[in-house]
Amino acid sequence: MLTTRLTERLGIAHPVISAPMANASGGALASAVTRAGGLGMIGGGYGKSDWLAEQFALAGNQPVGCGFITWALEKNQIALDETLERSPTAIFLSFGDPAPYAEKIKASGALLICQVQTVKDAKRAIEVGSDIVVAQGSEAGGHSGKRASFALVPEVADTINASGSDALLVAAGGIGDGRGLAASLMLGADGVLVGTRFWARDEALVHENMLAEAVAASGDDTLQTSVMDVARELDWPERYSAHTLRNKFTDQWHGNLDELKKAGKAEADKWAAAWIAGDTDIANTMVGEATGLISSVMPAAEILDSIVSEASDIISNSFKQNVKQG
Amino acid sequence: MLTTRLTERLGIAHPVISAPMANASGGALASAVTRAGGLGMIGGGYGKSDWLAEQFALAGNQPVGCGFITWALEKNQIALDETLERSPTAIFLSFGDPAPYAEKIKASGALLICQVQTVKDAKRAIEVGSDIVVAQGSEAGGHSGKRASFALVPEVADTINASGSDALLVAAGGIGDGRGLAASLMLGADGVLVGTRFWARDEALVHENMLAEAVAASGDDTLQTSVMDVARELDWPERYSAHTLRNKFTDQWHGNLDELKKAGKAEADKWAAAWIAGDTDIANTMVGEATGLISSVMPAAEILDSIVSEASDIISNSFKQNVKQG
Repeated sequence: MLTTRLTERLGIAHPVISAPMANASGGALASAVTRAGGLGMIGGGYGKSDWLAEQFALAGNQPVGCGFITWALEKNQIALDETLERSPTAIFLSFGDPAPYAEKIKASGALLICQVQTVKDAKRAIEVGSDIVVAQGSEAGGHSGKRASFALVPEVADTINASGSDALLVAAGGIGDGRGLAASLMLGADGVLVGTRFWARDEALVHENMLAEAVAASGDDTLQTSVMDVARELDWPERYSAHTLRNKFTDQWHGNLDELKKAGKAEADKWAAAWIAGDTDIANTMVGEATGLISSVMPAAEILDSIVSEASDIISNSFKQNVKQG
Repeated sequence: MLTTRLTERLGIAHPVISAPMANASGGALASAVTRAGGLGMIGGGYGKSDWLAEQFALAGNQPVGCGFITWALEKNQIALDETLERSPTAIFLSFGDPAPYAEKIKASGALLICQVQTVKDAKRAIEVGSDIVVAQGSEAGGHSGKRASFALVPEVADTINASGSDALLVAAGGIGDGRGLAASLMLGADGVLVGTRFWARDEALVHENMLAEAVAASGDDTLQTSVMDVARELDWPERYSAHTLRNKFTDQWHGNLDELKKAGKAEADKWAAAWIAGDTDIANTMVGEATGLISSVMPAAEILDSIVSEASDIISNSFKQNVKQG
């Protein structure tokens, strides 16, 4: 068992939050993570009202949070409003300025979690009153920025400390097991956000072909690319791109985005159909570099237990074996 | 104090190796790190015989190692041969296949250290009999690959374990203080390689303007780019690029490499002159994302002491505060 400021302040057993992965993190996963002692999050993504209603219903009575892609909320504030009416534990905003939504979220009683990709973002997150700042490294699955976790997490820790804010810090990106949790605590985090490891789990809204690929892959097999966003004609700001497994589709179009733009809707439709069909030559298995640490698909509760007990053992063993007293 | 397999097998006090930074890591820094209880490395880089002779002379009687850019050795094996005659503690190879040089290095009695940027590289390093594998994340200063430390280090740890090799594992990239050392041990490393933090130190072969920039900068101010390599007409394989502080030169040419190639030698000469003059608008301050963790220029011995004592305290405190017994 691990006790941190995160477990104490949120009243949860384990310092682990499941990432609100768009499409993949539904009510089943979120509620399973909460039930197992973490904080589960529904991946609200671009904010589809029907899907959100369905997933919150699936989460039932378990307290869960919900994440949104911040820049996409501008055209779709209704999704946030509807979600706040469901009394989520937390609203998680990433990829854009949280300022327009911060006050409303905090007034609702939900925790405000802002995920940041730079120190500059972290300063903004503190400014708008984030309860939790998630420092996300570029090794994360799906969208992220350019900075990696190892130096970003401690620099954000220093930034929070210097600000006088009592915001908690959570590390994200590349955390696939107890080693990543233990390392994150050393870097100054109060807990971790886990995406890829929970992506490969029984409660998946993910095709079994993709789960099989995630288990087989090394982190070497991933790349960061805008191919999927261009194919799907999504207006992602240039500073963000997505980590995914390489496949024939990215081999064809990565480094050839102008041609992909011209190919237009046909390619987007092809990708969307392939996602549903589990055709992994076209649709991309959206995992980060931690995919290389995953060797099985397990229930979320078992994943959570193994992450926490491994981290606890590692810290204990390191104290006993590495630290020479006196 | 921290004891690990690295300190035990090498008979050194601290599990810290200074990175063999080309141009910047001379005999003064390497010997200072060894004297302070780590393992100091001279940055042999592309293999300039005169410079190496001078730097080994400056290191005096202190046992130090020497690093080379592997792909550059092909045209310049004499630099390796001359270095081996000086009985270095270790030869450190990075950025290319170590196979052609491994046998010769091991036969000389020097430790073979191979720095890797992927799991595939790590397998090769094990195959050629590396005594130490350095897993280098893309947040490192200077050249590196595309994978970041947080998931690369544990995946390489698993790869070494699965191979049955008794090679040691050292983490590199983004480690600027004791937090990074403690985190690296949690991820399965036996020690760390520190570059950027030792770059900003009294024993610098670095212009004071660049030291001042490194102290002032955030990791946000860095980028990974091939601009300097193209300007200097160096034949770096495409999979490697260099982390550095952004400046007017990278703003002008990053994303415009074809034009830079046409500009040719004039730009390369301008860059080289600016490096000597400390003109940081043109020559780049070659630090990684850990630059955001550095707030002073100190002697190498003090840096080493502070990294180790901070790591030791963090592990002890985490054991006492986070791990709930039973």
